[in-house]
Order: sequence, then C-alpha cells, then structure tokens
Amino acid sequence: MLRIAMIGAGRIGKVHAGNVALHPRAKLVAVVDPVEASAKALAGALGCQWSTRPADLIEGREIDAIIVGSPTNTHIELIQRAAAAGKAVLCEKPIGLDIAAVDHCLDELKKTPTPLLLGFNRRFDPSAAAMKHAIDAGEIGTLRQVVITSRDPGPPPLSYVATSGGLFRDMTIHDFDMGRWLLGEEPTEVFACGNVLVDPQVTRFNDYDTAMVIMRTASGKQCHINNCRQAAYGYDQRMEVLGSSGMITNDNLCATTLRRSNASATQAREPLLSFFLERYADSYRFELDAFIDAVLGGKPVPVGAEDGRHALLLADAALESARSGRSVRV
Amino acid sequence: MLRIAMIGAGRIGKVHAGNVALHPRAKLVAVVDPVEASAKALAGALGCQWSTRPADLIEGREIDAIIVGSPTNTHIELIQRAAAAGKAVLCEKPIGLDIAAVDHCLDELKKTPTPLLLGFNRRFDPSAAAMKHAIDAGEIGTLRQVVITSRDPGPPPLSYVATSGGLFRDMTIHDFDMGRWLLGEEPTEVFACGNVLVDPQVTRFNDYDTAMVIMRTASGKQCHINNCRQAAYGYDQRMEVLGSSGMITNDNLCATTLRRSNASATQAREPLLSFFLERYADSYRFELDAFIDAVLGGKPVPVGAEDGRHALLLADAALESARSGRSVRV
Amino acid sequence: MLRIAMIGAGRIGKVHAGNVALHPRAKLVAVVDPVEASAKALAGALGCQWSTRPADLIEGREIDAIIVGSPTNTHIELIQRAAAAGKAVLCEKPIGLDIAAVDHCLDELKKTPTPLLLGFNRRFDPSAAAMKHAIDAGEIGTLRQVVITSRDPGPPPLSYVATSGGLFRDMTIHDFDMGRWLLGEEPTEVFACGNVLVDPQVTRFNDYDTAMVIMRTASGKQCHINNCRQAAYGYDQRMEVLGSSGMITNDNLCATTLRRSNASATQAREPLLSFFLERYADSYRFELDAFIDAVLGGKPVPVGAEDGRHALLLADAALESARSGRSVRV
Amino acid sequence: MLRIAMIGAGRIGKVHAGNVALHPRAKLVAVVDPVEASAKALAGALGCQWSTRPADLIEGREIDAIIVGSPTNTHIELIQRAAAAGKAVLCEKPIGLDIAAVDHCLDELKKTPTPLLLGFNRRFDPSAAAMKHAIDAGEIGTLRQVVITSRDPGPPPLSYVATSGGLFRDMTIHDFDMGRWLLGEEPTEVFACGNVLVDPQVTRFNDYDTAMVIMRTASGKQCHINNCRQAAYGYDQRMEVLGSSGMITNDNLCATTLRRSNASATQAREPLLSFFLERYADSYRFELDAFIDAVLGGKPVPVGAEDGRHALLLADAALESARSGRSVRV
Repeated sequence: MLRIAMIGAGRIGKVHAGNVALHPRAKLVAVVDPVEASAKALAGALGCQWSTRPADLIEGREIDAIIVGSPTNTHIELIQRAAAAGKAVLCEKPIGLDIAAVDHCLDELKKTPTPLLLGFNRRFDPSAAAMKHAIDAGEIGTLRQVVITSRDPGPPPLSYVATSGGLFRDMTIHDFDMGRWLLGEEPTEVFACGNVLVDPQVTRFNDYDTAMVIMRTASGKQCHINNCRQAAYGYDQRMEVLGSSGMITNDNLCATTLRRSNASATQAREPLLSFFLERYADSYRFELDAFIDAVLGGKPVPVGAEDGRHALLLADAALESARSGRSVRV
Repeated sequence: MLRIAMIGAGRIGKVHAGNVALHPRAKLVAVVDPVEASAKALAGALGCQWSTRPADLIEGREIDAIIVGSPTNTHIELIQRAAAAGKAVLCEKPIGLDIAAVDHCLDELKKTPTPLLLGFNRRFDPSAAAMKHAIDAGEIGTLRQVVITSRDPGPPPLSYVATSGGLFRDMTIHDFDMGRWLLGEEPTEVFACGNVLVDPQVTRFNDYDTAMVIMRTASGKQCHINNCRQAAYGYDQRMEVLGSSGMITNDNLCATTLRRSNASATQAREPLLSFFLERYADSYRFELDAFIDAVLGGKPVPVGAEDGRHALLLADAALESARSGRSVRV
Repeated sequence: MLRIAMIGAGRIGKVHAGNVALHPRAKLVAVVDPVEASAKALAGALGCQWSTRPADLIEGREIDAIIVGSPTNTHIELIQRAAAAGKAVLCEKPIGLDIAAVDHCLDELKKTPTPLLLGFNRRFDPSAAAMKHAIDAGEIGTLRQVVITSRDPGPPPLSYVATSGGLFRDMTIHDFDMGRWLLGEEPTEVFACGNVLVDPQVTRFNDYDTAMVIMRTASGKQCHINNCRQAAYGYDQRMEVLGSSGMITNDNLCATTLRRSNASATQAREPLLSFFLERYADSYRFELDAFIDAVLGGKPVPVGAEDGRHALLLADAALESARSGRSVRV
Repeated sequence: MLRIAMIGAGRIGKVHAGNVALHPRAKLVAVVDPVEASAKALAGALGCQWSTRPADLIEGREIDAIIVGSPTNTHIELIQRAAAAGKAVLCEKPIGLDIAAVDHCLDELKKTPTPLLLGFNRRFDPSAAAMKHAIDAGEIGTLRQVVITSRDPGPPPLSYVATSGGLFRDMTIHDFDMGRWLLGEEPTEVFACGNVLVDPQVTRFNDYDTAMVIMRTASGKQCHINNCRQAAYGYDQRMEVLGSSGMITNDNLCATTLRRSNASATQAREPLLSFFLERYADSYRFELDAFIDAVLGGKPVPVGAEDGRHALLLADAALESARSGRSVRV
C-alpha cells in the first residue's frame, strides 16, 4: 500500500486525489493546499488529513510519496525536498519553465535519486499506448512521419496566458513529448510558426494561440504538430503515424457511440469530450497505476525528469524558431 | 455495336437512353413514348429517331434490342413482341404484378428464347457486387444471416400507390431480389408485418408504408428486410451479411467524402443522395454493360425473367403473411 | 452508506462485488457462495466477510441490501427472503425461467414491497441511455422502427445450453427488454424464427443458436432483433431507431480509437471487446449507482420485477412462434 | 461543339481523349504523339485522326482547342503556338519547371490572350470543390489552418525522378495549389523539410521522397503539407480546414462502401484507389466541363497560368528552404 499526499487541491489535484482514494494499492493520507478551505474541502470529501504547508508532511514518516499538482513555480522545490526525504514523486508537467533551473534540478536529483514520474499523462491513454505498442511491434515497418493535432476547446483566461510560459512551453509541450515518444528518436531540429488568430489580446504577452511545428530526427524521421487554443467542435486530440508498411491513425473519443442522421446530416457523432479532465480521465488512472508499479513494484518509471527536460528544450527551440524564422538545432 | 430502342421517355427512360447514347458498344436508334412531346424531346437531345408506337420498331430491322421503361402494365406485351421478333430485352422490374400473367409470359418465352435482362439494377451497384463476390469467394465462411435496410426518402403520390401493386410488390421487391441473391438459396418461408405509420391515407388502398420481413431458406439461413416509405435523412440503402468467419456491411454512399465538425456535432457527413436515380447511377451503367455483354458477347444474362418471377412470389407471400399473421411457405 | 452482501462469487459476482467495494456510497459487507473457496477468495481480495449460506446474513442487521448473482434457480427464493426481511435487492436477470413462478413471486412482492432493481444492465450503458434519452426528447420525431443486433462472440458450453431456458429466455431476453424500452410501448405481437447454424449439437436440447424476431406494438411500431451465438469478429451489440424526423444508430465500442491502414485494408479498427463483462463494464457501475440512488435517495427503481416478467412473456411468445410459424399475441 | 486535339497519347492523354470523346459538347478531332504507334492506337480506338506533329493541327482550322498532355518540356512552346493561333488550351501542370521561362510565357500570353486552363485537376474533385464552397460560404467561420496529406502509393522510376524537377515541383506542386486555393490568400512564407526515407537512390538526384511543409499567409493563416512517395495502403489524399466555428475534413475515397469485420479487425475498408487516374477520374471529367464552359460559354477559367506560376514559386521557395533550413519569403 503506497501512502500518498496530494499537493494541490485544485482541478488536477481533485482528479489525482480521487484516483488515489479509489486505488486498491494506494492510500490517500493528506491533501495539502495553501488555501485552507480548498485543502479542507477535498480532504473532507475523501476522508483524509489536510494541511496548508507541505514541508512537514514530506519530511515525516506518514507518507511514501507525493503527487505534485500545485503551481509550476513550486515544482522544483517540492521535487527536491521529496528527493532529499527519500519520497517518490508523481509531478504534473512541467518541471519548470526555465531550462537552467530544470537542469540544476536534474543534477540535484542525481545525488538523491528518487522515483519521479512526470505527468505526461497522454502517454497513458489506452489508444496512445496501443499506438506506441504497435509501432514498437513493427506493425507499420520503419516509421517515417508523425502528425499530431492538438487543439483546445477554448482559450484560457489571459491571466493564465501571462504566467503560462507561452503556448509552446504550456500547450505544445505535451505534443513535443508525444512526438519524441512516437518517433522513438530525439528530434534534432525544430521549425515553428506561431500566430495570434483567436484572441488579439494574446499579442500583449508576446505569445501565440495558433501554431504549426515541424521536427526532424537525425535519421530524417519527420513530425508535424498543429495547435490552436480554440476548436469550436471540442477538445481535438488526434495522432497519425506513417511507416514503410502502413499507417495508424488515432481518432477523437466521444462519450457515446451514437451516430445521428437527419435532414441536415448523416452519421453525426456528438461533440467531443469537453477538455482534458474528461478526455484523459483514464490516462490519469493508468498513470497512477504506473507510478505505483514503479514505487512498490520496482518497475522502471515510464516517463521521467529527463523527458520533461527534453520537451522543454524542444519548446524553447520552437519559440526561438518562431521568432527567427529559422529551424533551430536541439 | 448494339442498336437499341428505348421504350418510355420518362424518368428512367432518360437514364437508360443517356447511358446508351454514351456507350461505346451501343447505338441509340430511337425513343418511343405515347406522349409525342416526351419522345421528341428526349430523341432531340440525344440525336435519334422518335416514335409514339413501339410495334413497328420492334418488328423492324433497324434495332437489335429494346429497353423497356414504360409502365408496368405494358411490360409483358412488349417482352413477348420482342421475343417473337428475336430482339433482346432489358426490362425494368417488375415483369408484371400478377403471378399468373408472369408465369404465362415465362412459358411463352420458352418458345422463342431471347436474352432478357430484368432490371434489378441494385445487383450492379459496385458495392453490392463486391459484397456478393466476397460471399462467393468464401470471405465470411458459411453465410448465416442477411439484413437489408431499404428506406425511401419520402412517400410517392397516392396516385402511384393506387396502381403500384402495393409496398411488397413495388418497393420490397428489390429487397426480395437482393435477399435471394445474397442468400444464394431460395427462401422457402416468408413472414411479413406491415403498418401505416407515414401517411394514414395509405390505408385507403389497403397498403402499408412501413414493413419488416423475415425470410428463411431450406438450410436455415435467415434474412431480415426493413422498409419505410420515408427516411428524413435520405435514401437509405444498407446491407449486412453474417457468416461463420466474419461480417460484411455496406454503408450508404454520400456525394462527397467530407466530414463536418462544429459546436453541435462531429464527423457529420452530408445528407444521403436524394433517391435511386442518383444513388444507383452507376448501377444503371453497369447493368447496360452486362446487357451488351450478354447480347453481343454471348455471356449469360446475370438476372432474368425467372428472378423476376421469384421476387414476385416472395412479395405475394409477404402480403399473405402480413394479412394472416402466419409465415407463408413459398 | 449502503451495506451490501454479494450473493454469488462467480464471474458476475466478482464484477458487482468489485464495484461495491470501490463505490463511495456503498460498503461490501460480505460475499456468499456455497463453494467455500470461492467465497473466501473474493472476500479476501476485497476485505470483507464471507459465508456459504445466505440466509443468516439476509435476515441479520449488518446489511441493507443484497446483490443476487447466484444461479437462476435460486433467484426467486432469495428475492422473497430479502423482501420479507426488508432488504433491497439488485437481482441479475432473469427472475426465473417459468412465468407462473415469476408471477407468484411478483404477487408475493406486493405484500412486502422492497426496492428491487432487475439487472438489465444494458439500459445503463452510456450510449443506450443516450439513445433512449434522445428518443424521449423527441429528437427523431415519432418512433417507427427499432433494429437490435445482438451476437455473442462464441457459443456457451452445451452444459449451459441444457439449463439456460433456451436462446430466447437466456440471450434474446436482453433484447426483448431493450426493444420494449426503446419502443416505449408494449409489444403485443411477436414473430420469431430460430435455427441451429453454429453447432448441430444444440438441436439435442431443442434449442436454437441463430434467430430473428419481429415484434409489433398496438400502435404499429415495429422492432427487429437478430441474434447469433457466434460472431467471429467479437461481441456485436448494435441498435438503430428510426423516427419520423431522423435515425440514431449505436455502433459497437472498441477498446481504442485506433484505425489501421496497410496493403490489405484501410481504417481497420481492432476486434470488438471480447464479451459482456468488458463491453458492459460501465453499465454495471452505473446500474449500481442507480440502485444506490433508489435505496438511499428514494429515487424510483429504473428497471424492476415487472420488466423482468414482460421480457419473459416475450421470450415465451417467441418460442411459441418459432415452433408454430405464427405470430403470437402477448 | 468544341473541336479538340489531344497532344500526347500517353497515360493522361488517354484519359483526356476518352473524356472528350464522350463529352456531349466536345468532339475529338485528332490525337498527336511523336510515337506514331501510340497516336494511331488511341485515334483508332476513339475514331479520330492522328498525327505525329502538332504544329499543323494547331494552326489549322479544324480545331478550336488543344489539350496538352505531352512532356513538360514541350508545354511552353505548345501554349504559345496555340495562343498565337487563337486556340484555347487545357494544359497539364506544370507550365514549366523554370520560373524565368514560365514568366516569359506568361508575358507572351498577355499579348495574345487565349483561354488557358491549367490542369490542377484536384480542384475539380467533387469533395475538394464542396470543401472550398463550404469555406467560401462561411461554414467554418474565419479560416485558420489547412492540413494537406498527399502520399503516393509508390515511388516513380528513377528515370522519372531525374527529370521531374524534384519532389516539390513535381508532386507537392498539387498541394501548393490546393493550399493556396483553400487558404484564399497567398502564402508569403514557406518552410520545408525534405528527406530520403523510401529509396536511398533518390539522393543521387539531390532530391527528396518524404517532405513536410509549413506555409503562412500575410494575415497569419497556416498550412501544413505532408508528402511521401510511398504509402503501403494506397494513394492517400486527405485535407482538413479549421476555422473559428468549425472544421471540415476530407477522407479518402474507396471504390466501395463495404466494411469488413472478422477475427483480426472490424470495419476494415478496402485498400484505397490505386493512383491518381482512378482517384481523380471524376476530376478530369469536371475539369473538361469547366474548360468547355469557359471556351464555349464565356465563363471565367477557374484555374489559369498565374496559378501555375504561383505554385511553382512556392515549390522553388520550398526547395530553397529545405536546403537552407530557413523559412523563405515568397
């Protein structure tokens, strides 16, 4: 039984804490949030302790692991504190927004190694995992191209944009990770193109809301990513891999398998699941499974700090490319 | 080159005459219609002779074959006249609505055999033909069940209902033929259930506008047909075959391969092709090919008078079943 | 918190007991099974008591409700005992295989009414529920036809066939319930046709393994059901409803949203989920929700003993029809 | 009636000549090919004159228009000769492979203007045309992104690669045209990335066989193109447009609407149409329609020499980008 404290009682904290509470091999010991009311409410609902300060808990004997779902700027300190105390960590992406700070964190982790699973939850989606498995099993022969479509249902508030690190570090970073993972080789070159087509206010933050990226590996495999902060039809999450002997595509998931036909259309499916909490509900559960397997079962952590660092490097390169109009070597 | 006269310048006459005019191995010699204006107009458009009386043409030397697209009550006489004159016939279904008259016609045809292709055009649809081919090639193992969905976009005028012979003889007859063909064995038992759910006026004609049928062959293969005179989403033409090692379904055809996604639906395809002239445009062309192959190339006629007779027997049995509530032996 | 005892530690017992154990408003108190090893194993895995005899538990104070997943021939006694003790019941279908016994049980229940949810689990499938909701919301106008396809991946052992009550009472009964529910009116007439096409041994039990049914309501709405004990491509569960203003179809569910394209096919989805435990995993959870809502929340039980009785009446009528070749009034 | 001479009796010449022969408003007067046997064979099959030298025909009075399906290096001379003689031209793409020569040709055309339709046949595909129509009708709001997937079933012979002008000028040029057309604005910036992943021999020609491109217009609309000279599953031709209020995708077209389900897959469609002659058979017919409408009916030519020039500019920019690693302004 893995004893876990949830750091952060916000949207994602609720998801993780709920999954821990239901997991047969985990026990939710505490919920931590600087906002007392939030911590109390979630702990009350799930029947565990609460706290506004993580430090004591992390260093105490009551827990074996933490899940970090607090704001990005707290991640590095929490990781390092947990590592020092010998506690395992499941940390929401990203580790941080500054590559130097992330590199420093990774150096520290080498001194006090601890299982750290980085929350690139999409890798745990059953369809994404099956696609990766099929590639690795040779089903499409030698991989040649990857195409990732990733569009949010609607833009975040501008206050979020201000501190998000920008489109590439905040949104595309999931796709950079997915691209690396599906390619099976490190991209060595990134070209990106960003525009503001959804909300002109975004220009105030020197950010983009619509982007296209091309990455390439040393052996010449190519990957395209397209992003938009708004898709009228819902949260659009598709992938496609082309290899020498075939192609696999991953369509969007709907809540039901119904298809409607009437005077204006046929075979219409319902709108897509509203956003990541709904679309990736399964992923979060399987991610927790993998974390518990790693900590209790000694299995390797399937996605770690190095993956977070690599994705950030690609995001930084994309930003540089979008500003310079040149492809950037990584 | 097959020299053809088109009998009937209505909706279906225009389709056949146009196909003949464009066919590299056929020549449209004349269009015949009792309505002079219709005959003239179509002949003018396609550059051939016209007439209001078929008799002289059929018996003359200028033509090798006729296509019969005139009203049902003229079919038998035209077929017999053509047979007597040694001319080939492509006749729209049905041969007739009365089984005794049809039997008599078939007897007469035995005396002066002539190539006669009966216009069960759906057999020539590329998808239907590919499905039949796959069954015959053993792709689904031993056939067990056939399901045919056949719904019109909207009901015909009541004046048509009055003389149509009724739903089973007029509309379901195509599905009886399709069922026989896909089953690959004669149905020996028919159960049918008919209702008036679209237009209450239809009851005046002792007819139905919505029906479900089950047929069974001697070896126990089963076939379901469902019909409705109205489908708000268009002309619905689907088929499904289940065998011991698999299933093949045949979806509806759309004019384009577009799929629309917006705030109210995803992957919506456009409405279905409006009706049989659009949906089965290819079928009519391939049917003409098969007719020419039979007459000029000595190939067997793929669907003939006996098929028309069998379909009518099933329609009659369905009507008897719908009225009696019992399954009827054929 | 609803305190529940699970009666039966077999395949379905494991599903229900696991769902109860994870449910935030339920507590699994005990597992009961005459086979001690089974009871012990399941209770051990889920951390609750076990017993080989249900009687004491049902009459004791430790539980509020039972879930009945024991063999069919025990259902009626368990239901009556629970009713007498004032305990709620979630009972797997069917109540019984003999209509007289079922009628007697229903009479008894009137004396000591207890919340009884009958496990027609498919009603709780999210897509089925959304389809019913759409019909009730008027989305397709006036309902005209229902088509239900329900095929098992492979036949059960002959030992099961021997005691199953026959195809109509064992397998089609789910579709009779689904048909009644979607039609929104009682079928008053049933025609059925059964054959042995999968395993000739089935004839020894005077049973069928392949069937087609047509039902009709008093207002003339029609419903077709097709069944086969074997579908090479997996557990096939589809539905279609046609109304005056549109159609809704419910496709099969796959484990992933992948589509494969290679030299032999395009857009191939993976095989279907293997059988009901996988396909309807969600249904069982939502069914338990509904049960808890009824018992603790005072909401109406969405599917009860009367529904079980009606489905059995239809199954009996289908059997009579299949044997007589006549449609049977219900 | 438009009197047409077909220049070139190869693969594409046969398609065009056949369409002309069947067209009710056109007459195929002659087929011209330097290979006498080819010219003779095609002319014989379609019942028209033949010649090995185009000059006399173009300048003679017997024809009103030519269709140019001869090798690329003959296009400019034929166009200019036809323009000088006042004959209309339907010219296969590209006008030429050298932008200076193309510019010179366009200058000459200004002196003796003649209807010139450039054979970007994909614009005439019913689905592509419907997509463009939907965009123009405002169906997806303001356009933001275009994604074009265009993969050949297999690589051309190396001898073809040697003179093709390279992947971007030969293959991607169709997608550059499609991108421009769907975007509705000129791309002002091109980034491209090319690799040799199919056949290493292609490197000998300093060419690529796998490519990804991003284009951007002045207002920031983005377009991605991906190409591969080999797709094991057939000729892959898809498009997607994202706008502020929706998305439209265009799937591949199959020869039938069948879907197969068996033990290894469900809903498998058959392999895609083999290559452009099959996939775009309709396009060539509608293209001819548009040409005849322009010449005989005075309608504007829907795609002309300027479009050819623009697509070539984009191809040249892509090549420069692929070699330099920078986005190139157009």
